[in-house]
Amino acid sequence: MKKRIAVLPGDGIGKEVARGAVEILQAVGERFGHQFDFSYGKIGGTAIDEYGTPLTDETIQLCKESDAVLLGAVGGPKWDKAPAHVRPEKGLLKLRKDLNLYANLRPTSYYESLADSSPLRKEVIQDVDMLIVRELTGGLYFGKPSERVQDNGQDAVVDTLYYQKAEMYRVIKLAFELAQGRKKRVTSIDKANVLESSRMWREIAEEVSKDFPDVTLDHMLVDNAAMQMVKNPKRFDVVVTENMFGDILSDEASVLTGSLGMLPSASISEKGPYLFEPIHGSAPDIAGKNMANPLAMILSAAMMLRVSFGMEEEAAEVERAVNQVLDAGFRTGDIASFGQTHSSTTEMIDEVKAVL
Amino acid sequence: MKKRIAVLPGDGIGKEVARGAVEILQAVGERFGHQFDFSYGKIGGTAIDEYGTPLTDETIQLCKESDAVLLGAVGGPKWDKAPAHVRPEKGLLKLRKDLNLYANLRPTSYYESLADSSPLRKEVIQDVDMLIVRELTGGLYFGKPSERVQDNGQDAVVDTLYYQKAEMYRVIKLAFELAQGRKKRVTSIDKANVLESSRMWREIAEEVSKDFPDVTLDHMLVDNAAMQMVKNPKRFDVVVTENMFGDILSDEASVLTGSLGMLPSASISEKGPYLFEPIHGSAPDIAGKNMANPLAMILSAAMMLRVSFGMEEEAAEVERAVNQVLDAGFRTGDIASFGQTHSSTTEMIDEVKAVL
Ligand SMILES: CC(C)[C@H](C(=O)O)[C@@H](O)C(=O)O
Ligand SMILES: CC(C)[C@H](C(=O)O)[C@@H](O)C(=O)O
Repeated sequence: MKKRIAVLPGDGIGKEVARGAVEILQAVGERFGHQFDFSYGKIGGTAIDEYGTPLTDETIQLCKESDAVLLGAVGGPKWDKAPAHVRPEKGLLKLRKDLNLYANLRPTSYYESLADSSPLRKEVIQDVDMLIVRELTGGLYFGKPSERVQDNGQDAVVDTLYYQKAEMYRVIKLAFELAQGRKKRVTSIDKANVLESSRMWREIAEEVSKDFPDVTLDHMLVDNAAMQMVKNPKRFDVVVTENMFGDILSDEASVLTGSLGMLPSASISEKGPYLFEPIHGSAPDIAGKNMANPLAMILSAAMMLRVSFGMEEEAAEVERAVNQVLDAGFRTGDIASFGQTHSSTTEMIDEVKAVL
Repeated sequence: MKKRIAVLPGDGIGKEVARGAVEILQAVGERFGHQFDFSYGKIGGTAIDEYGTPLTDETIQLCKESDAVLLGAVGGPKWDKAPAHVRPEKGLLKLRKDLNLYANLRPTSYYESLADSSPLRKEVIQDVDMLIVRELTGGLYFGKPSERVQDNGQDAVVDTLYYQKAEMYRVIKLAFELAQGRKKRVTSIDKANVLESSRMWREIAEEVSKDFPDVTLDHMLVDNAAMQMVKNPKRFDVVVTENMFGDILSDEASVLTGSLGMLPSASISEKGPYLFEPIHGSAPDIAGKNMANPLAMILSAAMMLRVSFGMEEEAAEVERAVNQVLDAGFRTGDIASFGQTHSSTTEMIDEVKAVL
């Protein structure tokens, strides 16, 4: 089977980990007899430096013509003072919007072998298995107006949290569908005691739940959710929430099990292509030092194999290889316990390849 | 010294814990020769049941004529389906706005004796000492429009994140002032890579910091902050952020040390009166069962003695009494370790009184 994959390494460690994913996919292709064609595009600060914009039309076109997109990470201090429209993040936001990637799926899983690198007690995180479904193309991220204003001679500013009912509906429905293949439990998170948008969100969640009698739904306020994630993360199965709450809560969730450098994510649209990226950022402090953990990116590639190409066996093989490398004691600095030897990015990639 | 204190017990366990604070204050009054006059007002669901509105003009008037306000908690499932304007929370939001309580101060402290009830490892939370300063009367909580709309025949909804520069300025300045009496470090939290309001917030934080050369300022994105609170809470001294981010992060912070039932808060205005309340909610599930932990409310009263009345010695005495009761092993269910006997609300109150 031939598949076209757009690779956007982006900034910082994005470049190093993207290379890892490509090497692993090549190994998978050889072993299983698939042809993966990789085309490269620039995004983020790297694109700003070359083209003066964080995302060119050519790159968008490239993604649209591909079967799936792999993204490294964007951003860095070099571009932090730039005006809003030429920031690296704008490239990612525009790509999400142009590809209609309305839902971001972030699994948080427990790795027995990494339990020691978690800030939480082992008994709190053991067997955590949570999937956060974050709305990705609406809310405060895209609402207009978003600008400085004058108000009776006062300097003021406004951002807008805007949603259409249909935008809420489709992502909540997706969460219920995903829950059917899991523990059949959806927790919908909002701030219905304050926001009108949250009251609408809650109504729609109730409406959708009528079509899924086998799935239980509960509602939780976002402040309470921020507590429960730490106190009792095991209580969650599928979590669904709007864009900004999802940004905050999914990052919080990602550190619970001590495996931030291990977590992949998928961004889904109605028609494809989908985008796969690690949850971690561009980590400018360790960029170029061959220290980054490539496993989240490699596991994102595995997610792509499963979700976009239906290659369940191939995906499982990559995941198995990653686990075997961990069990053998190989660790980048972020997941190493005190006293453990640190492996480099390229060593980790080579180890996974060797097992495959 | 004579002081007028407005007591608004509110709903659920609010009533039980407010009674405790009053008893302790009476004991303090006797011992130190102060006269505390208590006047009671209704707020939240209790007020809805009696007057059809969560906050009457009489109660607002009562608060304005007092030297300080003590609040229990508001809310409960009974009123959850009510239309927006007759929800218990609306009473609290209106009170904050009418009393101009622009900053909410939430200290998160580490209690050695409670370390076992934290979900985090002891080495992660030991000596955590963080003060979250949350903007309380602006942002998404009060911006207009906040309503359902029709957009090209589509059902849609909008909420508005609105701030005047002056509103950001005063709360950020307060955070710097508070940092001067602490470890001289302010972390300002925003989402400047997405929101225009956050970019303005960041500029103002830079501007204010020029007037405080002895205080260091760093900026952190809200998603990263949600991670760092769990990974490394010790890195924070004073944290300042806008209303909604503050709601989420302060609740997250409150569970780190395992002492949610112990944490007081103060809401500050330019001219007073200030309002003091525990961080925990109305806990409908244990309301009326004499199980609630009264210590957060008692410590809120201590905060009132210190901040509103300048009674440092009296405040310290109450805090000392609370610590002594904990050291003696008395625990309500929320802070008990496995196998420890649970004390009731009234037992805890009596123990603190006895020590005083
Ligand atoms: C880079 C930034 C704009 C982005 C977001 O806020 O969505 C990131 O934090 C993420 O979660 O993917
Ligand atoms: C009750 C609710 C409106 C309130 C808030 O969101 O401000 C509460 O969560 C708090 O933090 O005091």
